[in-house]
Amino acid sequence: MASLPHHTRIGLAGLAVMGQNLALNIAEKGFPISVYNRTTSKVDETVERAKLEGNLPVYGFHDPESFVKSIQKPRVIIMLVKAGAPVDQTIKTLSTYLEKGDCIIDGGNEWYENTERREKAVAESGLLYLGMGVSGGEEGARNGPSLMPGGSFEAYKYIEDILLKVAAQVPDSGPCVTYIGEGGSGNFVKMVHNGIEYGDMQLIAEAYDVLKSVGKLSNEELKHVFSEWNKGELLSFLVEITADIFGIKDDKGDGHLVDKVLDKTGMKGTGKWTVQQAADLSVAAPTIAASLDSRFLSGLKEERVKASKVFQAGGLGDVLANQEVDKVKLIDDVRRALYASKICSYAQGMNLIRAKSIEKGWDLQLGELARIWKGGCIIRAIFLDRIKQAYDRNPDLANLLVDPEFSKEIIERQSAWRRVVCLAINSGISVPGMSSSLAYFDTYRRESVPANLVQAQRDYFGAHTYERVDMEGSFHTEWFKIAKQSKI
Amino acid sequence: MASLPHHTRIGLAGLAVMGQNLALNIAEKGFPISVYNRTTSKVDETVERAKLEGNLPVYGFHDPESFVKSIQKPRVIIMLVKAGAPVDQTIKTLSTYLEKGDCIIDGGNEWYENTERREKAVAESGLLYLGMGVSGGEEGARNGPSLMPGGSFEAYKYIEDILLKVAAQVPDSGPCVTYIGEGGSGNFVKMVHNGIEYGDMQLIAEAYDVLKSVGKLSNEELKHVFSEWNKGELLSFLVEITADIFGIKDDKGDGHLVDKVLDKTGMKGTGKWTVQQAADLSVAAPTIAASLDSRFLSGLKEERVKASKVFQAGGLGDVLANQEVDKVKLIDDVRRALYASKICSYAQGMNLIRAKSIEKGWDLQLGELARIWKGGCIIRAIFLDRIKQAYDRNPDLANLLVDPEFSKEIIERQSAWRRVVCLAINSGISVPGMSSSLAYFDTYRRESVPANLVQAQRDYFGAHTYERVDMEGSFHTEWFKIAKQSKI
Repeated sequence: MASLPHHTRIGLAGLAVMGQNLALNIAEKGFPISVYNRTTSKVDETVERAKLEGNLPVYGFHDPESFVKSIQKPRVIIMLVKAGAPVDQTIKTLSTYLEKGDCIIDGGNEWYENTERREKAVAESGLLYLGMGVSGGEEGARNGPSLMPGGSFEAYKYIEDILLKVAAQVPDSGPCVTYIGEGGSGNFVKMVHNGIEYGDMQLIAEAYDVLKSVGKLSNEELKHVFSEWNKGELLSFLVEITADIFGIKDDKGDGHLVDKVLDKTGMKGTGKWTVQQAADLSVAAPTIAASLDSRFLSGLKEERVKASKVFQAGGLGDVLANQEVDKVKLIDDVRRALYASKICSYAQGMNLIRAKSIEKGWDLQLGELARIWKGGCIIRAIFLDRIKQAYDRNPDLANLLVDPEFSKEIIERQSAWRRVVCLAINSGISVPGMSSSLAYFDTYRRESVPANLVQAQRDYFGAHTYERVDMEGSFHTEWFKIAKQSKI
Repeated sequence: MASLPHHTRIGLAGLAVMGQNLALNIAEKGFPISVYNRTTSKVDETVERAKLEGNLPVYGFHDPESFVKSIQKPRVIIMLVKAGAPVDQTIKTLSTYLEKGDCIIDGGNEWYENTERREKAVAESGLLYLGMGVSGGEEGARNGPSLMPGGSFEAYKYIEDILLKVAAQVPDSGPCVTYIGEGGSGNFVKMVHNGIEYGDMQLIAEAYDVLKSVGKLSNEELKHVFSEWNKGELLSFLVEITADIFGIKDDKGDGHLVDKVLDKTGMKGTGKWTVQQAADLSVAAPTIAASLDSRFLSGLKEERVKASKVFQAGGLGDVLANQEVDKVKLIDDVRRALYASKICSYAQGMNLIRAKSIEKGWDLQLGELARIWKGGCIIRAIFLDRIKQAYDRNPDLANLLVDPEFSKEIIERQSAWRRVVCLAINSGISVPGMSSSLAYFDTYRRESVPANLVQAQRDYFGAHTYERVDMEGSFHTEWFKIAKQSKI
C-alpha cells in the first residue's frame, strides 16, 4: 500500500464481498479510496487484499470520523450495506461528519421510494444523494459492473470520471454507466433489470426442462447445446454459465452437480417488487410474473412431492404422451422459442420502465439503458444491442414486438415457439414463462380480444358502462331486464 | 312510510344505488333504518323509493346530527361511500355525534389496512368498527348480498340478527354471512373474492373466444352452449349472465349487442391488490394475474390494432392454422378446460387467503368462506359447494388440487384441457387464463421442477448457496473457477 495521501478521492462503507470488490476495482483504476466497515476486521481484510492484488491505493479506517475526514471535499461515499434499516443507520453515522456539498451513494438493491425519502432527508443538511444500481455480482463489482446511478445530477457529474472507468467496458458502445435520471430512478431501473433477470433464468430453465424431460438430452448434450447457443443470437452471460453448469461434476458423489441441486429457488425481493409495480402501473408483465410464481412453487417441494403421488395414483401419468421427438429439430425449436419468449420479456420490462418514467417525469432513455446493460451485468447479452438499435430507430416505439427487426424475428420463430409450448403441454411439462410470453404476444397483436364480453358482464352486474365499436360515448344497458323480458 | 319510531334500529350513510338498495333491503327485513347522504336529494330519493316499494320503514335525514341521534343506542351506521378519503371524511362527520360503544361499518371495497388504521383511530373515542365486504352488485344489495364483516366481534354480534336476514339465503347452507375475523379480514376476503371474480370472467371470455374464433359458433349457438353449461358443474351467476348477454340484440343497429361492445375492460383496483398481495405473500396466483394482465392489454386497443397490421403484413396470418374442428367435441372440451382452470384459480385464491390469515393470525375458515359465497355474490356457483365439502373433509388441505374429488375431476378433464390450450395456441388465439392455470397445475403436481438450474445459476453468479437432494445443509460451489479450470 502506498503511503496515505493528503486526502483520498472517494470513500466506501460496507465491506462484504461486493463492497470489497468495488473498492478494489476503484483503487485499481487509479482512484485512492478510503474504506470503512462497522466490523473492523473487514477493513483489515480489504486492505490486505488491496496489498495482495497489486498494492492498490486502499486506505482502511476503524472509526467513521477519521474515515470521512480522510476523503477530499466535496466528499463522496458509496455505501454497500443491506437495503432497509442498515442504510438508514449508515447514513446517520456518516452524516455526523459529512459537510454541506458532500454526497452519499447507496449501491444496494434498495426500494426506490426509500432512496427518494433519504435524498430529501439528507438535503436538509445540504448533502447530495445518489441511489445507484450495481449489477454483475461479486465478479462484476471487481472487474467492471453495470452501474445505474440516479438522483443528484451534480453529484453524478462529480464522480463521473470514476464511474466511467470502474464500469464494464464494451467495445463500440462504451462504459456500462450513464446518468439514469432523478430521484429513485437508478434503483427502479435496477429493480426492473432484476425482474428481467428472473425472466431470463426461468426461460432458460424451461428450455432445459423440455430438452431434458422430453428430448432426453444428457448433461453433456445440454452443455454442448448451450455452448452452441452461446455463439449465436442467444449469446449471453446466463447462457454461458448455464453451459458451464452442465459441465460440472459432483465432488461429493457420482454424476453431475446440477442433478444434486435441490429444485428450490430463493429470491430477495426485486422480482416481487417488479411484479407489484407492473400491477400498479397497469403494465402487463406476465413473463416476469410467471418467473416469480415458479420460484414460489419451487419452494413448495414437500407439497409437490405429495401432489405428484396423488396424481400418479389417479392415473395422470398414463395419459401424458411420451412423445417421439427428433432431437435436432427439438433443439432448434427450443432455441427459437427461447429467443421469441425473451423478446416478450424484455418488451414487458422496457414498457414498465417507460410507464414509471412517465408517471415520475424521469425522462428515462430506454435505448441508453439497453446500452449500459450490454456489459457487466447479469443480463448482459448480444441481444441488448438489438434492443438499443430498436430504440435508436424509434425512441417512441410502443412495444419492442412491433419494431421491424423484432417483428420479423418473431414471425420467423413463431411456429417453432407454438410447437415447443404445445409439446411441453402434451408432455405434462409446464413452461409458464414461454406460454405466458406467447399469450402476451398473441394478445398484443390481436385487433379484437374477448374483452367485449368481460365489459358486457361488468355492465350487466355492476352498471360499469361500456364503449361501442361503432360510435363515441359511454353506454349502459339494462341487460338483466331485457333478458328477463325475453324469457317470459 | 310509517311514522318515525322513537329510534330506528340502524343507520346507513351514502345513498348511491348500492347504499339505497341495501337500506331498502334492511328495511324490508323489518328493521327501521335512518338514512343520510351529503347530497340531500339522494335522501329524498331513497325515502321515495321506500314508499313505492311497499312503505318500508326508511327514515331520511338531511343533517348528520339528527341522523345519528335518530338511531337507537348503541348506534350502528353502515357507510357505503367511495373507498379512501370519502370514508375518512364520513367517519369524521359521524364521529362528532357518535358516543362510546357505537359502531361504524364500512361496506365499501376498502384496502384492508385502511380499515385497520380506522379501527384503531375510532377506538380512541370508544367506537367499534367493522370493515364489511358486500358482494352482489346493485341487485344483490337489494335482494340479498354476500356479506363479509370483519373487525369488532362485539359489533358483529350486536347486528348479527340484521345481517342474517339481509344476506342472501341459500337452501341447506343458510344466510351468506359469517363473522370473518379480526381487523381488516373482511375487506381482505372481499378483495380476494374480486380477484377470483376477475379469474372467472377471464376464463369465460377465453372459452367464448375459442368457441367463436376457432369453433365459429354464432351468438345464438353461444347462448345455447352457456345455457346448457349452466345446468351442470358450471352452474353459476356469471355463466348465466353470459348466456343472457349472447341473447341480447343491439337496439342501436343490426345484430347482437355483445359484438358492438368495445373490447376494453375497466377495473377498480381489487384485482390489482390481489395480485400484489399474492406477490407479497409468496403465493402463486397466475390465473388471477393473467386476468389482470388481459384487462391491461385490452386497454391498449390502438396499439393492438397497429400491431395486428404489422404482423399480418409480416405474414403471420398465413401460418396460423385454420383448424378443422368438430363443434360438439370442441364445446365439450372447452367446458372441461374451463372447469379445470376454474379449480386452479380458486385454489390460488384460497391459498392466498390462508397465507394472509396465518400472517395476521386471523384464523379464517376457508370452508365457511366458500359457504357464504354460494349465494348473493358475483362468483356464486354450485362449484363453491364442492369447495366447502373439500375443506369440510380436510380443513388443512394444502391445495384444492389435491382434494380427492377435485383431483379426480382434474384427471378426467386434463386431456381436454391440454387439447383446448394447444388448439388455441395453434390458432393464434391467446388463452392466458387457461394456459397459466394448466402451467400452475403441471408445476404443482411435479415432484421435480427445473428450479435446480436456477438455483445453480444464482449460486454461480451471486454465491446464494443451494441445498442438495441427497444431504442436509447449505452448499456453495466455485462454479466459475471449476469451469475455467476445465477449459484450460
